[in-house]
Amino acid sequence: MKKGLIQIYTGDGKGKTTSAVGLAVRAIGQGLKVCYIYFHKNPDKWGYAEQKILEKLGVKIFGFAKEHPFCDKKVSLESIRNECLKGLEFIKEIFRQKKYDILILDEVNISLRDGFLKEEEIINLLKMKPKSMELVLTGRGATKKLKEIADLVSEIKNIKHPHQKGIKGRKGIEY
Amino acid sequence: MKKGLIQIYTGDGKGKTTSAVGLAVRAIGQGLKVCYIYFHKNPDKWGYAEQKILEKLGVKIFGFAKEHPFCDKKVSLESIRNECLKGLEFIKEIFRQKKYDILILDEVNISLRDGFLKEEEIINLLKMKPKSMELVLTGRGATKKLKEIADLVSEIKNIKHPHQKGIKGRKGIEY
Repeated sequence: MKKGLIQIYTGDGKGKTTSAVGLAVRAIGQGLKVCYIYFHKNPDKWGYAEQKILEKLGVKIFGFAKEHPFCDKKVSLESIRNECLKGLEFIKEIFRQKKYDILILDEVNISLRDGFLKEEEIINLLKMKPKSMELVLTGRGATKKLKEIADLVSEIKNIKHPHQKGIKGRKGIEY
Repeated sequence: MKKGLIQIYTGDGKGKTTSAVGLAVRAIGQGLKVCYIYFHKNPDKWGYAEQKILEKLGVKIFGFAKEHPFCDKKVSLESIRNECLKGLEFIKEIFRQKKYDILILDEVNISLRDGFLKEEEIINLLKMKPKSMELVLTGRGATKKLKEIADLVSEIKNIKHPHQKGIKGRKGIEY
């Protein structure tokens, strides 16, 4: 891979994380090295099945700021911000190591949308990306500036979703 | 899984097939049985890496109408329609067998958009879906009626794509 690009999957529809997972699988199939870092997700609670499979396929997986006030009202905003900042430092270390061809930052746009990270912090991070690395950001709330910087932006619009009919997240489909 | 729904991933942005691949991986991780049928794709030419990995994970993969006039001008429209019709019969057999929890029909919307299949043929097919089976349709060009019938519709809008800058499909990213 010559030049790595920045891809963003945003919008309110289903398909952002699954797109990133599909990308990881395709990359692994071509012998690339993939790292997947997720934010605001708690596999201990939900057991995201795709992460287990990616790990088996050789994808390295890390998580930061697993709690979110939406799911756990007791968690302090400050502690989430600190966790996100730890995540940023970790990503910078991943950049320095240059071990991976693709780095997925799943739901990192949420960190920005919900004010845990500042736009300039993410933009500064993007500037530090090694040239050869492909970077994939997912989550609702990608800002105009982030979209400007990215090379690829897909906005996934929710036209219809079963939760609007009261159907809850289903095992094997939503987690 | 109680009731299987119909999901559609359509629109002109990147993320339709990769979403379906991510869904397959998630489902496999929860012990579900997945079948993946693709249309208008030729792995012999492009070597879609994600398909090899899905197969290793236990997903059953089949392909129909591998050629498309967009890629091969010598192929006749009639032969593509016949291949698509064979695909429909095969899908009906998959429905009868009830062996799978999830069936993905990758790029089947293209068969409809490009006139190889008629809307009523797809709609009749959807009516035959076993109740417990989740059905996932991808590809540009899902019609209004198809969207009405589906339980979930995500429209992936292309905001920005590197091919607009002349960057060609990259190994490990686009195939």
